[in-house]
Amino acid sequence: AIAYLYNGTWSNYIATQKPTKFDARTLADLDERTKREKGIDENSPMRLRMEKFIREQQKEIVFELEKVDGKSFREDTWTREKGGGGVSCVLQEGNVFEKAGVNISVVYGTLPKPAISKMRVHHKNIAEEDEVDFYALGLSMVLHPYNPMAPTVHLNYRYFETMRPDGTPQAWWFGGGSDLTPSYLFDEDAVHFHKTLKDACDKHNKDYYPKFKKWCDEYFSNTHRGESRGVGGIFFDDLDETVADADNSFAFIQDCLKSFLPSYLPIIQRRKDMPFTEKEKEWQQVRRGRYVEFNLVHDRGTAFGLNVPGSRVESILMSLPLTASWRYMYEPEPRSREQRLVEVLKNPKEWV
Amino acid sequence: AIAYLYNGTWSNYIATQKPTKFDARTLADLDERTKREKGIDENSPMRLRMEKFIREQQKEIVFELEKVDGKSFREDTWTREKGGGGVSCVLQEGNVFEKAGVNISVVYGTLPKPAISKMRVHHKNIAEEDEVDFYALGLSMVLHPYNPMAPTVHLNYRYFETMRPDGTPQAWWFGGGSDLTPSYLFDEDAVHFHKTLKDACDKHNKDYYPKFKKWCDEYFSNTHRGESRGVGGIFFDDLDETVADADNSFAFIQDCLKSFLPSYLPIIQRRKDMPFTEKEKEWQQVRRGRYVEFNLVHDRGTAFGLNVPGSRVESILMSLPLTASWRYMYEPEPRSREQRLVEVLKNPKEWV
Repeated sequence: AIAYLYNGTWSNYIATQKPTKFDARTLADLDERTKREKGIDENSPMRLRMEKFIREQQKEIVFELEKVDGKSFREDTWTREKGGGGVSCVLQEGNVFEKAGVNISVVYGTLPKPAISKMRVHHKNIAEEDEVDFYALGLSMVLHPYNPMAPTVHLNYRYFETMRPDGTPQAWWFGGGSDLTPSYLFDEDAVHFHKTLKDACDKHNKDYYPKFKKWCDEYFSNTHRGESRGVGGIFFDDLDETVADADNSFAFIQDCLKSFLPSYLPIIQRRKDMPFTEKEKEWQQVRRGRYVEFNLVHDRGTAFGLNVPGSRVESILMSLPLTASWRYMYEPEPRSREQRLVEVLKNPKEWV
Repeated sequence: AIAYLYNGTWSNYIATQKPTKFDARTLADLDERTKREKGIDENSPMRLRMEKFIREQQKEIVFELEKVDGKSFREDTWTREKGGGGVSCVLQEGNVFEKAGVNISVVYGTLPKPAISKMRVHHKNIAEEDEVDFYALGLSMVLHPYNPMAPTVHLNYRYFETMRPDGTPQAWWFGGGSDLTPSYLFDEDAVHFHKTLKDACDKHNKDYYPKFKKWCDEYFSNTHRGESRGVGGIFFDDLDETVADADNSFAFIQDCLKSFLPSYLPIIQRRKDMPFTEKEKEWQQVRRGRYVEFNLVHDRGTAFGLNVPGSRVESILMSLPLTASWRYMYEPEPRSREQRLVEVLKNPKEWV
């Protein structure tokens, strides 16, 4: 679901440039001029407001994570030939984080017909044409701490828009979510994480949390193992005008993304210096293997991105842990902490 | 292509048992009786001759690898409710092998209509019916040595048969291959490996090696990286009566499988005790990450097996290394040995 945010995926489909027609490239240039000459305020197009917001959030999150870790992120900026680009911030072999990636990307592109047909299932106002110009952007993050008592966390918020041939917006929607993946389960961490997300959701719509919590459990499932990737959080897609207007949805996305630091910082602070054994580190490595399995086998965005030539592979696979392990028939001891985690992953719990 | 050999995959499609009809279960019982009462000779059905052969080969390969390693394989035998079963032999954390798996499996099952339609593309004599009983078996092996100078090797040979409603064979074909994946490239190893396979091929058909070498390069490709998984070997499928008769094909398969030990033992003997640095071990771990990427993202058999409930996941994922690593933007030094490997993987070579 999120590949188009990570990379130059769609560039392959982009039609030969026709300078007389309003296209994705034209829009990218126009947006650049708007940003340069007028700046962004609440009357600007949503895509520019969302872009401004995620750029600020990336900076703030990186700033706070550097305070936790003590080491600095490496920052790579790249641009896409046909419009857009991204900034990948990666901290590898830090003091607290084995690998941490905070990535934003912006794509101006053109959708081919099969992709349009798929999207029309959820967004009826996309016209049935041979090509549709689109805009997509998002912030994606995965943090893998060293300490096996400290959980991995993932977050992604994104915005998508399709354009009419004259360049005006046609369909738009938001998507995203955030979820927690411990190797050792501390109930209080799962409760705190879910409670923070529920509070952000409840401010906007009391139906959001239960619906998006369930969606998260269903999506982040290693179905071949019969277990969830982690203890969940929220996940949603296709948040469009049938759910709420653009301003209200944007306000919701802002609250969700802003809730990340309060949802995770107390947890990492509590766990990052806990004592652990070699055997516990080994279990974490096996769990990291399961993380890799989900991301490479089941995650729709990753699979899609990797199978399309020309994508920025290093930004897509930034989500993979520095190290992972596969041990044949590795079974936790009965009634152990490891066994309890597996039981919870097989039967997702209600945490709040 | 090989998922059905590893696991109980097809069991989900197996129709409710109808005791009056000849079905896969009936055939499994019949084959069991034949083996028990009459034994196997050259007049036995091909599936039983192939089964006998791969069981012998598994024993011989495990015996020789134990001599190399000094430690013993763990052996797990399992049966499938609807007929068939397997034997997984795994050596983990040995002296020479970090992880080594030699697996055989036998499946009696029923193909659903969509699978039949796919197979009819290559095998016209499969009848267009709602269900077709089938038999599949194979030997699969992956060896991951500790020493970064010693290459990983993969091998798979398999036989497939579909049955008419009266239980007589309808279509049959062989498939398989073997390929080498070094972290450090020694040309003499690649040459020896390919030469041994070419000799086995040339005894049967001079066209086999060039055709199957190319097929291998094309199949074992991490297309998202623009590089091959390793330095190749041979890979083929659909070896049926349009290519050679069953006895000749079986003779070819036997020569291929028997060529494994001579193709790999001299290499592992030369490399297993070579000195190496921590940095070289790190590079091996990054290459292991690429191995995981191929197996989880691109390998059709693995993906298929994992996405069907009820499969024996531990036997499918036996192929994954004990440990692997993903380092962001990890680039080999210019003109280094690591760089040379990457160049060869980007432009597969002719070794013999």
